[in-house]
Amino acid sequence: MERGKERKERILEELRKLGRGVLQELREGRPPKLRIPSRGTSNIVYDEEHGYYVLGPRYEVRSASSMAQVKKFAQTLCVADFCRELVKAGKFATLREMYYTAEGWETGPFRDQDESDLLVEDLEAMLGVKREDLALMPEEDGAAVFGELVLREGEVTIDATKAGRGGYTIPPTIDEVEFVRCRAKRVIAVETMGMYHRLLQEEAWKKFDALIVGLKGQAARATRRFLKRANEELGLPVYLFCDGDPFGFHIAMVIISGSAKLAYINHELAVPRARFIGVTATDIVEYDLPTDKLRELDIARLKQLQRDPRYHTEFWQGEIRRMLELGRKAEQQAFAKYGLEYVVEEYLPAKLREAERGIS
Amino acid sequence: MERGKERKERILEELRKLGRGVLQELREGRPPKLRIPSRGTSNIVYDEEHGYYVLGPRYEVRSASSMAQVKKFAQTLCVADFCRELVKAGKFATLREMYYTAEGWETGPFRDQDESDLLVEDLEAMLGVKREDLALMPEEDGAAVFGELVLREGEVTIDATKAGRGGYTIPPTIDEVEFVRCRAKRVIAVETMGMYHRLLQEEAWKKFDALIVGLKGQAARATRRFLKRANEELGLPVYLFCDGDPFGFHIAMVIISGSAKLAYINHELAVPRARFIGVTATDIVEYDLPTDKLRELDIARLKQLQRDPRYHTEFWQGEIRRMLELGRKAEQQAFAKYGLEYVVEEYLPAKLREAERGIS
Repeated sequence: MERGKERKERILEELRKLGRGVLQELREGRPPKLRIPSRGTSNIVYDEEHGYYVLGPRYEVRSASSMAQVKKFAQTLCVADFCRELVKAGKFATLREMYYTAEGWETGPFRDQDESDLLVEDLEAMLGVKREDLALMPEEDGAAVFGELVLREGEVTIDATKAGRGGYTIPPTIDEVEFVRCRAKRVIAVETMGMYHRLLQEEAWKKFDALIVGLKGQAARATRRFLKRANEELGLPVYLFCDGDPFGFHIAMVIISGSAKLAYINHELAVPRARFIGVTATDIVEYDLPTDKLRELDIARLKQLQRDPRYHTEFWQGEIRRMLELGRKAEQQAFAKYGLEYVVEEYLPAKLREAERGIS
Repeated sequence: MERGKERKERILEELRKLGRGVLQELREGRPPKLRIPSRGTSNIVYDEEHGYYVLGPRYEVRSASSMAQVKKFAQTLCVADFCRELVKAGKFATLREMYYTAEGWETGPFRDQDESDLLVEDLEAMLGVKREDLALMPEEDGAAVFGELVLREGEVTIDATKAGRGGYTIPPTIDEVEFVRCRAKRVIAVETMGMYHRLLQEEAWKKFDALIVGLKGQAARATRRFLKRANEELGLPVYLFCDGDPFGFHIAMVIISGSAKLAYINHELAVPRARFIGVTATDIVEYDLPTDKLRELDIARLKQLQRDPRYHTEFWQGEIRRMLELGRKAEQQAFAKYGLEYVVEEYLPAKLREAERGIS
């Protein structure tokens, strides 16, 4: 995988190319145009081979010769220029900060942040890079990680067993972080921080030679990057342990297959080889877990998932059907019924054996 | 401040005392009773002297001789026993885990988690200790901290400038963490992670000799404990920098004065000497910040704050009135209008000068 410096050079070159294209058209007396991959629903297609959503072949053209488009055209270049300056300086900004910074641009301020955010997506789609690479950072940090991984951020070396009981926090700038050394053999990512702290307390990271990741619900972009790098760069299998309900299923699926909304950048975010290990509907029955009744919303959501191409496998269709039949859901913390240690002493060993038999 | 070990012994002794009281009443042939401070609205009073809400003198009695109360009485003792075992073993559990664990108790399972949570609050109020001290942990981690503070968690020593770019994560178990060394002279806590990463990037921790704390919105209990300990144990002034809107005001106020809902435990959480430094309504005008119109909800909330005893100071009444007159609010990231560095180079120095002049 390319290092931070190479990545930075590549991004700068992409941005320069964009600018050179515009200049050349101007020199040749033609009104400059930008070709922007369409992100409309009809241009989002599920890529069976890769196992995630991608953009289709359609483009929109934004031209400086159209009165309706010229302001947006100029704003797009301003955004690209703002990013170029940040990348060059080794700095970053939030989308919100960019929106406020634009108050001082010659094009005038944006109406609202949606407007400036959309231009960033345009740029990501045009260049095929994530906004993090354009030095535009998400506000929120990623997940927490605990386990035998040593990382380097600039001058600082961090041991993810010694960053505190809360673990190492995946920063928005995770792509600039170098993996120095890893003794772990797998990643176990869990939905709730309650379960994360349970696994730490029971020393699951030692017991399973694992990096334990606390997702904090729906995984942040930085977390997805981390999981992808752990899988592809470190060669670790990634196991996802979520609540046994449609939202838990989907937290896992978005990690595995990406979201439709981010189709233009899923190749950088999806972890198609990550495996969901539970809580399944089958687990609910086999482990006789304490459950809650499915709400209307859960049922509607499960039916949606049934039709979603990402769930068109025997495993998922079976589990969704079973949950609908049961009419019940269960949380990952429900294993506490059998004592706090049960999840680490019984459940996870069984599920990991099953999953790793499947692989080998 | 007492160390983890002393604290643990004190808690165990409190729990034992509870048990001994029940036993003694039984031996003397009287039906055992528990006296539980009432947490009803009419028993929550604002303590002017301390500057936070506390419980008044009213009690409820839970007796084993009442058919209506005997089950709850037994459950309360089960909760206390569960906590005693955790504290003794040096373990902890989430409220959710306790709720599920109770499936195996002789009293039978709880109807829902609200029921078991209330018993924990009873126990906190009875003993005057936080549930964290009873080894019942919040699910969520606390804030992120970056700056010249060295901490010890068991065998592990952590330097909060070397725990990663995300900073040191305040764990739910913050009271077991020891402050080993601190070179910082103040704490600057900011509402949003966008601003937190801005301050880190501009090296505000060096420039202001500060621990930078990223609150992530409403402060978690662990964060409030950390701020209280930084203030009282390390003697650092604590400055709060939030959005200039009623929700930002209240994030600061809950840190300063605690909440009414937690009146029974505010003496462990409130940081009455912490100072709100902005964004104020006055700042919005003086710095000519980009603003948004106050929504209905904001206006209603501001009027609520006007009547709240915690806001009965000249400063707060003035700022609330001014914001209502302006009809506008501003975010802390709005300073990006003047460039990304402005907040660190101009705004914060001015505000800190003003605040520290006020103190000396």
